[in-house]
Amino acid sequence: MTRIGIGQIEPRIMDIDHNLQQLKDILRQATKAEVEVLVLPELANSGYAFDTMEEVEESAESIPKGAYSKQLIRWSRNGRMVVAGINEKFDEQYFNSAGIFAEGNLLDIYRKVHLFNKEKQWFSPGPIEPPVVEFLGHKFGVMICWDWAFPEMARILALKGARMILHPANLVLKYCQRAMETRALENGVFTATANRIGNERKLTFSGKSQITNTKGKVLLSIPDEETGVSYVDIDLPIADRKKLTKMNHLLKDRRPDIYRRLIES
Amino acid sequence: MTRIGIGQIEPRIMDIDHNLQQLKDILRQATKAEVEVLVLPELANSGYAFDTMEEVEESAESIPKGAYSKQLIRWSRNGRMVVAGINEKFDEQYFNSAGIFAEGNLLDIYRKVHLFNKEKQWFSPGPIEPPVVEFLGHKFGVMICWDWAFPEMARILALKGARMILHPANLVLKYCQRAMETRALENGVFTATANRIGNERKLTFSGKSQITNTKGKVLLSIPDEETGVSYVDIDLPIADRKKLTKMNHLLKDRRPDIYRRLIES
Repeated sequence: MTRIGIGQIEPRIMDIDHNLQQLKDILRQATKAEVEVLVLPELANSGYAFDTMEEVEESAESIPKGAYSKQLIRWSRNGRMVVAGINEKFDEQYFNSAGIFAEGNLLDIYRKVHLFNKEKQWFSPGPIEPPVVEFLGHKFGVMICWDWAFPEMARILALKGARMILHPANLVLKYCQRAMETRALENGVFTATANRIGNERKLTFSGKSQITNTKGKVLLSIPDEETGVSYVDIDLPIADRKKLTKMNHLLKDRRPDIYRRLIES
Repeated sequence: MTRIGIGQIEPRIMDIDHNLQQLKDILRQATKAEVEVLVLPELANSGYAFDTMEEVEESAESIPKGAYSKQLIRWSRNGRMVVAGINEKFDEQYFNSAGIFAEGNLLDIYRKVHLFNKEKQWFSPGPIEPPVVEFLGHKFGVMICWDWAFPEMARILALKGARMILHPANLVLKYCQRAMETRALENGVFTATANRIGNERKLTFSGKSQITNTKGKVLLSIPDEETGVSYVDIDLPIADRKKLTKMNHLLKDRRPDIYRRLIES
């Protein structure tokens, strides 16, 4: 069994010190709870509702050299993994990224492919498909928030062998949590969505961070107004059972020969 | 507005006469209700739970020359469209097909691509992507039952311009109805799933035929034990509004450049 935790937090826009302090608190909770794999929300270091490009630039950090990343790396020592959303400066561009850290190392960076609304003004879209990393013998896929609306993303992660999708989010619409049940079911993967709460400028974030099993059943849902770490112990190899009936394999029954339209632009 | 009807029926395995009589009853109801587009369940002419290949062969018909097809064509005169699941004999093969008839003509035949469980013993899988047809100035896509589990299918139909997905089904698992809400939402299309009820041999069919709007809201759900036609009047061009936010278009925001893995076998 692997202990999967999701941290529901309330970052403040442009308040780097507050956000770092909040991170320390949440990591302490995760340590106490003996969480092995922790997921934190999108843009956890900076907050979300930017007004200007200058704000984006001021609150960005490089991965893994920034202060937020360093805390995450430090926590990840002693056999732990953590995925967190970070406003990232890279190569003179800004990305809505997820840093993936394990055992004191940076494993990978995912740069969000599908940008939501005003994010298009602030961030460059990610240039490549989402990553799958290995930890404790299990493969984990990572996507960010609005990627949920594109079934292509969870599918790509499942095809790359992910047993679980780790999903930092800052949700303002109400649709994601239900849709993630379908993402889990159609791919036979576990999912963990870490959402934030609170208000920033005109936006309200919806909480209800959740973990689902491979049949789309919600195993854990954190109430709207709470912050903190919640966790479930999960038998991840269950995700290798892709047969929904004796003769139906969720991935092998796919028909790539007729899906060509999906990659035509 | 277009009046979309779904017919929930109870075919009997290998009882062609009963199934034809039931069709006549349901078409009469649809006429009385002034339905313009009618969806009927999968394998409505033959029943579902075959025991032998001989049963499949005996109960199959050609489209549009078979008795079931002829009834559907006749009903479709006077400005109507109907989609129904048919056990089809074609070119010395058997397909789990949907006949699409409008205004007295055969518009297209969809041959099910993703076969469910024992269907693999009886039917050849469809060789091409699912079709979109035009009727009353609207585009309609067609897929059958278990195709719901493959997000690629509804996506292909949306990319081909379908405003609504017409979805004959014979559901035995409990997952489809919820998943279709996600199919609607992620593609911004209306959906109409016509399911059957009753028992055949060891299988029980789950009813709950449903119509959803483009946000995945269930507009109509027929109770488990009922047969009959229910309908909703739908403003189909709403499905052309693919923007979920000012800056997010459900289809144009796709990133075919990074989806290549979806067509690798």
